Amino acid sequence: MDISKRPIGIFDSGVGGLTVTKEVINVLPKEDIVYFGDTARVPYGSKSKELVYKFSCEIINFLKQQNVKAIIIACNTVSSNCYEDLKSKFDIPIIEVLNPGVASAIKVTKNKKIGIIGTEATIRSNQYEKKIKDKLKDAKVYSKACPLFVPLAEEGLLEDKITIDVASMYLEELKKYNIDSLILGCTHYPLLKNTIKKVIGEDVTIVDPAFETAIQMKKFLQEKGIENKDGGNHKFYVSDKSDKFDFICSLVLKENHIAEKVSIEK
Amino acid sequence: MDISKRPIGIFDSGVGGLTVTKEVINVLPKEDIVYFGDTARVPYGSKSKELVYKFSCEIINFLKQQNVKAIIIACNTVSSNCYEDLKSKFDIPIIEVLNPGVASAIKVTKNKKIGIIGTEATIRSNQYEKKIKDKLKDAKVYSKACPLFVPLAEEGLLEDKITIDVASMYLEELKKYNIDSLILGCTHYPLLKNTIKKVIGEDVTIVDPAFETAIQMKKFLQEKGIENKDGGNHKFYVSDKSDKFDFICSLVLKENHIAEKVSIEK
Repeated sequence: MDISKRPIGIFDSGVGGLTVTKEVINVLPKEDIVYFGDTARVPYGSKSKELVYKFSCEIINFLKQQNVKAIIIACNTVSSNCYEDLKSKFDIPIIEVLNPGVASAIKVTKNKKIGIIGTEATIRSNQYEKKIKDKLKDAKVYSKACPLFVPLAEEGLLEDKITIDVASMYLEELKKYNIDSLILGCTHYPLLKNTIKKVIGEDVTIVDPAFETAIQMKKFLQEKGIENKDGGNHKFYVSDKSDKFDFICSLVLKENHIAEKVSIEK
Repeated sequence: MDISKRPIGIFDSGVGGLTVTKEVINVLPKEDIVYFGDTARVPYGSKSKELVYKFSCEIINFLKQQNVKAIIIACNTVSSNCYEDLKSKFDIPIIEVLNPGVASAIKVTKNKKIGIIGTEATIRSNQYEKKIKDKLKDAKVYSKACPLFVPLAEEGLLEDKITIDVASMYLEELKKYNIDSLILGCTHYPLLKNTIKKVIGEDVTIVDPAFETAIQMKKFLQEKGIENKDGGNHKFYVSDKSDKFDFICSLVLKENHIAEKVSIEK
């Protein structure tokens, strides 16, 4: 089979990666996509690095069976904790979401005070701060784990008063530091973007790594000459059946899909 | 080995079952206990019945390897969705938490208006309502799923303002119905008891099935003549390592333990 015709694989712990998928569809409308959401084991962000690595290996093996030509880790917890290990283990091109997020933040910040929000595992890894300071030595970086944002997004409570209250609790601290940009360091968080914007204030630029990630995939396909010119099919798999996945999928992508349940555990 | 010397097995999706364990320790201080918390796959309440059954089978097989003499399902999601199936599959005595909760509620209600809060899977199963009406035909039963309570409890946000706000959102509806008793239909919820009490009001009796469950185990052991007279060791296993588990364990049980990580997936 012509490699250009093979789909792109995208995965996340649940619905979060759909925000990346949306940008990939916008930027690469003619690519076929296979998405895997690990809804049986969501959330990842409160789990250990070892376990997240194990889950990721199972998913990548599944995506390889689907004959994908490249993979996007649409999950910051996996990207920040396991990217290097996964890249050396698997002989397939893998793109992650941290570097694109860092590149975007450096572009938009003026006062070099950058905030990052993510899961506990992502914040604990300290990868965002390290990567920002590698490129912008005098940057000040302020991080905050927001562990309830994923359950809130998975519940579909996107702009609810309770979500505003939770966001106020988490973001209070960051507001003190006069940040001018805030990286959404979890792919679930763009679902709560309006709420986060409302709480952090209009003068802080929200950085969503999703668009840059899609651009990076486009560049990679162009460089290799393996762009698809006449695809555009999107297929969704989950590890546990849930109406909420299909609901949020239609909300984010404006496409109706019924995700297929598969078992990937080894 | 003398059967009376063998431990009691207790399991839950995470820290919730510790509230049951606490009562078992109070009621049966000389029993050895082996606890398993499925912290790698928590929460169960938003997952499908099939998946919760699969997870439960893996855990029961693990507890059987630990040579337990009887098992307590310290999880309402498992009890309400899978108890009958598990009971027929396994040749080991299994006690669940629904019937004890129902018995307690019927004892305390005066106006026969009973509220139930639990996970989505527990509420969806309708088992509490069915069991209450079997025993108290003219009871009015009002149910409400509170999906964020488990993540809040697992985060240790037990009496935080945000937890009060979330509880207010969920319990608003139940308050209208003039209930005089409220079953905590999830073993995580006793961790939030002070908050729930504050929101639902002092005139509503909170029913925690944990105590009755422990009593039921005691009766079973007495009937069979297999009580332990000189044990009292407690051992904790988890499927993912987490400091939070150990922290909440010490908070609930007033005992310090370091849970051991084990892999139970088949």
